[in-house]
Amino acid sequence: MKVATCAAPTNIAVIKYWGKDDVALNTPLNSSVSVTLHQDQLRTTTSVAGGRELQTTRLWLNGQEQPINKRVAIVLREMKQWAIRVRGSDSDATQHLHIVSTNSFPTAAGLASSAAGYACLVAALAEFYGLSKADEEYPGQLSAIARQGSGSACRSLDGGFVAWQKGEQPDGRDSSAVQVADELHWPGLCAVVCVVNDAQKDTSSTTGMQTTKATSPLLAYRAKHLVPERMKIMEKAILERDFQAFGALTMQDSNQFHATCLDTTPPIFYLNDVSRQIIRLVHRYNEQAGRVQAAYTFDAGPNAVLFVEEQHVQEVVSLVHHCFPTSHKMTIKSSIAVDRTPSAALLAKMEAKAENGKAFNLPHIPDSVKMMYVSRVGGGTCVLPADEALVDAPSFWLPEEPALRYLATAVAAAAVTSAVLLRK
Amino acid sequence: MKVATCAAPTNIAVIKYWGKDDVALNTPLNSSVSVTLHQDQLRTTTSVAGGRELQTTRLWLNGQEQPINKRVAIVLREMKQWAIRVRGSDSDATQHLHIVSTNSFPTAAGLASSAAGYACLVAALAEFYGLSKADEEYPGQLSAIARQGSGSACRSLDGGFVAWQKGEQPDGRDSSAVQVADELHWPGLCAVVCVVNDAQKDTSSTTGMQTTKATSPLLAYRAKHLVPERMKIMEKAILERDFQAFGALTMQDSNQFHATCLDTTPPIFYLNDVSRQIIRLVHRYNEQAGRVQAAYTFDAGPNAVLFVEEQHVQEVVSLVHHCFPTSHKMTIKSSIAVDRTPSAALLAKMEAKAENGKAFNLPHIPDSVKMMYVSRVGGGTCVLPADEALVDAPSFWLPEEPALRYLATAVAAAAVTSAVLLRK
Repeated sequence: MKVATCAAPTNIAVIKYWGKDDVALNTPLNSSVSVTLHQDQLRTTTSVAGGRELQTTRLWLNGQEQPINKRVAIVLREMKQWAIRVRGSDSDATQHLHIVSTNSFPTAAGLASSAAGYACLVAALAEFYGLSKADEEYPGQLSAIARQGSGSACRSLDGGFVAWQKGEQPDGRDSSAVQVADELHWPGLCAVVCVVNDAQKDTSSTTGMQTTKATSPLLAYRAKHLVPERMKIMEKAILERDFQAFGALTMQDSNQFHATCLDTTPPIFYLNDVSRQIIRLVHRYNEQAGRVQAAYTFDAGPNAVLFVEEQHVQEVVSLVHHCFPTSHKMTIKSSIAVDRTPSAALLAKMEAKAENGKAFNLPHIPDSVKMMYVSRVGGGTCVLPADEALVDAPSFWLPEEPALRYLATAVAAAAVTSAVLLRK
Repeated sequence: MKVATCAAPTNIAVIKYWGKDDVALNTPLNSSVSVTLHQDQLRTTTSVAGGRELQTTRLWLNGQEQPINKRVAIVLREMKQWAIRVRGSDSDATQHLHIVSTNSFPTAAGLASSAAGYACLVAALAEFYGLSKADEEYPGQLSAIARQGSGSACRSLDGGFVAWQKGEQPDGRDSSAVQVADELHWPGLCAVVCVVNDAQKDTSSTTGMQTTKATSPLLAYRAKHLVPERMKIMEKAILERDFQAFGALTMQDSNQFHATCLDTTPPIFYLNDVSRQIIRLVHRYNEQAGRVQAAYTFDAGPNAVLFVEEQHVQEVVSLVHHCFPTSHKMTIKSSIAVDRTPSAALLAKMEAKAENGKAFNLPHIPDSVKMMYVSRVGGGTCVLPADEALVDAPSFWLPEEPALRYLATAVAAAAVTSAVLLRK
């Protein structure tokens, strides 16, 4: 029995991907850029185990066995065929696999777990098969395979700031991610993830993208004529650590993505009234500061990710906590010490009358933000040592009853991860 | 003393106007089309009185004296100069005026009172000065003057279906409205106006348009490249009384207008969670019917206007009443008898599982829709007889104290209008 274990981060797009150019290849209508979040807060861990003893390939997510869906099957096939071409057909590459994966965060909370999940899967498979960058048959092969699992997964392989180039080749090989700058480039940049209560089930992003592409004339225009220029501006802002430019464009691009969702028939709404109040709060915060000090972005759900430089994290976290209080103490998982109470001076500035004489009323919507994560920019996928594997020693690998063992182990692993996070 | 009194309808755009081409001339970035609503439900009445006794020009709206704002001043100036050119400077055209105006509906409810208001003002001034179509110095002069008061006012002069052509001339003279079809053309078409509770003050449309034009790349594209084609499709759908095409494009265009608001920096939100639930309800209603039977449209606020053909008014009104009930009996002002309770068969169809196995949960948000108006397509501005004037006989026109008289009269007139409406 052989086991390989990897961890992967989530990423948050600041130039958004929405709409597939080719559904089968999972290539995008436009390029995108994202920030990789630190794994201290949000992390997926995946172990891949293989051996002659295994009769079928199986998958467990957070302790629950899942059917192998089409996208997982494509990733498994692509990785296996690559391994066989490189290592030969008498290698480990022909074995069946048991794959066990867990997230350090609630899965159904709309925290882009598929990006981290598929990035982690290809990384763990590459480690299992012993495939490295040097083995790539074309540049960006691992990234292109991750992309076929979930588009945004290709951006989770690398740390720092990552651009997913749309690509031009008909086989999609050049539609892969490249690092714009690594995780040490902009150490002061932080992301405050606000998990918003969501009563209603959102349209899945796969379905949503298809409908928007089919019905929104604004999406076609955005993808072809607006995003290329925005990619350049965003990469420049990142390279120059220009928070003003970075933040302004991040907000504009989030809004434009949601505008194309609204231009869809029937329209898709991911932002709810709480999301809108967070947007209003951020614009007001920037207005009183006289500059862009915080920038929101929203993916296919109501959760806000607020980019803030380290020196303003305290203000932003405390404002959100003040305006969206929870009846029980709100869970804030943070790598930075934060006081939950905004200063009287900040509140006074937020509520001061604007030049036009209008007063600003701070929102007050209890129990609408469930929890917050405060994260720095982080690294890409990494290989974990054997003692962090989510599967047990080979002696336990009885093909008849592996599920129970995985379940117990995965739950224990998740508990350990949570405990680590809570201590911080 | 001479008094002229006119009434004017509101109109609801089905191809939306948003953004000015020339702010001073009040010309639009794109053409638009609207439906004129019947005055039985929503009506503005305006009396213009003039005489040598009057020392200044004054204005009362719903019993409150208002300052003469810039737009009113432009309309007064343009009408007066036109009258002097046609009737001579020794005519009534040189007198000061007292203008009294009332709405048959709550003013602050976002029911586009400015369109009806300015249409009524130019109509009453034309009547006062004795100016008719035959006196126009260029085609559409009255419409072009109304447009300078409030853009959409030019569409309220005519009944039925009205297109406001963007125009090409630098002086804006050809930016005026023309009737596509009159109010008898599509007798079965009805509009259900749902007045939605709105806690937050919206961005005014004047400010909103400026910001969207200045910051949204999607608006520029929409105005130049998408609306011209949509105008043709909409006019064809109206002329052919093709509800499917009319309804589908009405919804698309409303959504695209709100998409450009969201693409604005900072973003503008006019739809709230209740608006979104109404949108969801309408799409579901059409889905179960297998065709477009209802179509929503939203202006610069959360109120929904639902277009429905007469035979489906009962279903739509009862569904809205069922999903958005009021704690007290909801006011429904309707020219069509409606039962407030949806049939069990309709509810069953609405809640039936879709082909994909998903169930639809009807929304239930109490006290979110305040009232409804059910209106047919109606006629344009009209001259009212002397006994419907909002001002008293000449003997009462003492320049020192007219305000009190106007106030009393206007309030009495509003009460009569409401009583008439409630009896229907």
